[in-house]
Amino acid sequence: MRILGDSLKKLTDLRWLNLFEVECEHDSGARGTWQFASRKAHPVLGAAPLEPDAVFIVPLLKTSSGNRLVVTKEFRVPLGDYEYSFPAGLRDDGEDVQTAARRELSEETGLELTRILTASPAVAASAGLTDECAAVVFVECTGRPHRGNLDGMEEIEVFLLDYEGVVNLRRTPAKFSAKAWIVLLLFEMMGELAWPE
Amino acid sequence: MRILGDSLKKLTDLRWLNLFEVECEHDSGARGTWQFASRKAHPVLGAAPLEPDAVFIVPLLKTSSGNRLVVTKEFRVPLGDYEYSFPAGLRDDGEDVQTAARRELSEETGLELTRILTASPAVAASAGLTDECAAVVFVECTGRPHRGNLDGMEEIEVFLLDYEGVVNLRRTPAKFSAKAWIVLLLFEMMGELAWPE
Repeated sequence: MRILGDSLKKLTDLRWLNLFEVECEHDSGARGTWQFASRKAHPVLGAAPLEPDAVFIVPLLKTSSGNRLVVTKEFRVPLGDYEYSFPAGLRDDGEDVQTAARRELSEETGLELTRILTASPAVAASAGLTDECAAVVFVECTGRPHRGNLDGMEEIEVFLLDYEGVVNLRRTPAKFSAKAWIVLLLFEMMGELAWPE
Repeated sequence: MRILGDSLKKLTDLRWLNLFEVECEHDSGARGTWQFASRKAHPVLGAAPLEPDAVFIVPLLKTSSGNRLVVTKEFRVPLGDYEYSFPAGLRDDGEDVQTAARRELSEETGLELTRILTASPAVAASAGLTDECAAVVFVECTGRPHRGNLDGMEEIEVFLLDYEGVVNLRRTPAKFSAKAWIVLLLFEMMGELAWPE
């Protein structure tokens, strides 16, 4: 499969999100068009490494009674409902992943990032539908959650879950982000909220 | 936060994917608009459970030399490049999740689903950008991979990874789906390609 050079067309002209169309040729020689959504003014369809649009932060909070997983609950307009997920947000221009993760964690929870445990490259949210990519960053943090750093438009509830809480939340009839549901499963399968040194 | 009734507007009129806009009101009383992408003709923004648009299948293949994780590599037009992920696809009308998972696994890999290990509810790919949801389904399967069930337009390479292969793939400079990268991390953290009974 290859994309036909210069065939990228912008189908809409909105501020935050647009639809694009490209022509492509299958190995069989058949041609087709593909439509996708992008937040980028000029999507780059090619072999260069992806740049993360966003950071998705999985925070382990160290407390005197053990680690807690920091989970968020936030109203999501496209779902028309609340979604359980993790602190996340768009990267500012020129910001590296660690800086963005530190800033978003502080803004959304009041907690302070102390250590990166593992970080993904830019990984795709749903590559048939959009080029949107995030860096998934597992971190340690300290502090007490507070809402003082939230901007006026953000309404985010923060939960500090112990292992039992993680197991129970995954079984709750609620809406989850796909990434968050798999992360909850990961910790459930590991059997504890710890990270190997 | 609430969505203002009847404010949903369809901004485009394409076949597979469209942009929509709704008005919403924050708890503070401030109003704003939100734009998002949807594959649905009539997105439903509300408290009802989500219906999965797609299935995302994490297959463990039982072999005489131990379990293998079945990973795919597929060209993704919005990325303009190949992406490592897992067998996945859109659900047909009226199809339940198990049937869709069995069909997609067979089409994309030639393997036969034998058992569901765990399944998520419909979980959101990136709920700021789209209402797209998938059921994430961990399964056991049997057989030998073959390409005989691929439709003419699909070009999907299948890899059978042992534990070392999983650890190595996650460190490969390549493009991954976000869900796949977290699943690879999950198995790496579990320390083996097994599923507790």
